Amino acid sequence: MARWEPNAAERLANAALDLFAERGYENTTVIDIAQRAGLGKSTFFRHFQDKREVLFGRGTMNGLLAEAIAAAPSTAAPLEAVAHALDAAGREVFTSARREFTARRQAVIAANPELQEREALKNLSLIASMTDALRQRGVPDLTARVAAELGALASTIAYERWSQTTAGDDFSEIARQALNDVRASTASC
Amino acid sequence: MARWEPNAAERLANAALDLFAERGYENTTVIDIAQRAGLGKSTFFRHFQDKREVLFGRGTMNGLLAEAIAAAPSTAAPLEAVAHALDAAGREVFTSARREFTARRQAVIAANPELQEREALKNLSLIASMTDALRQRGVPDLTARVAAELGALASTIAYERWSQTTAGDDFSEIARQALNDVRASTASC
Repeated sequence: MARWEPNAAERLANAALDLFAERGYENTTVIDIAQRAGLGKSTFFRHFQDKREVLFGRGTMNGLLAEAIAAAPSTAAPLEAVAHALDAAGREVFTSARREFTARRQAVIAANPELQEREALKNLSLIASMTDALRQRGVPDLTARVAAELGALASTIAYERWSQTTAGDDFSEIARQALNDVRASTASC
Repeated sequence: MARWEPNAAERLANAALDLFAERGYENTTVIDIAQRAGLGKSTFFRHFQDKREVLFGRGTMNGLLAEAIAAAPSTAAPLEAVAHALDAAGREVFTSARREFTARRQAVIAANPELQEREALKNLSLIASMTDALRQRGVPDLTARVAAELGALASTIAYERWSQTTAGDDFSEIARQALNDVRASTASC
């Protein structure tokens, strides 16, 4: 029977980041990662499908964004509903406590084309989740696609700004500003 | 010395598509592809870095779009410059003659996660090329990013529409309509 391992996914992700930075992504195996985390290989595979996946979670971000869009006030315009999704990302993912982890993760991804590809695909999947959630609010298809794309761009820009400022800045606030900036830019396109 | 092989890249891509459809992407090797195309392995590697790359060309699309944006009239607004890039894609890539190839290519990519990842990353690189080309026209950074994203979305939508209509439709025309639709949708976001 599986033992209960507190924070196993987080410990595995941290161990993976350490090893990828020390000896490179290619030279690290799943067994190395599990060992460094003080866990077994089977625990690794209960949490992640493969080595690449250890930095990408299991689609929790998709659910988080979609739920926040669904829960936005029914009067909210599409981009306002998207702002609620970015608020949720700020509360759950881009927190002060996860700032260092997030920065290390980005550095490892930037250094590895295989990880960049996985991230690019994950990003498309986040956009698809947001688009679906908007459609379910009755937003017309094309508007939903445009709003989700603009939201994803605002999120990328917010992440860049958030990771460059000194500690203490609130992602949600930065994301709302980025979303306003993106929206304003559409007018001069 | 390398022999000159007419249309080698195209022959290799067609052979790869045939084999991926017949026996699956995983069960096809570079040697199989070269053999089917009546070419040698070294010819394959003069044209493509690896098996995945055979469906993605060598960055020619990036140059094509960037050059068209640079060549747009200096008075053109950012999205009008992007429309010139989509015109170029219609003239060079999404032609009637290449319609069947393009449809088969999409079907193979849709069936294979590894290829989807490569495509997702290529798409990010096209957006980055368009963004750079717009910046070089003096478009402010954020506006350039927004225009390139909207252009990429319009291109995706145009591709969907183009591949669903019966033969004879002009991609450039469909792309301009898609770009207008996307632009109009930003107002109701």
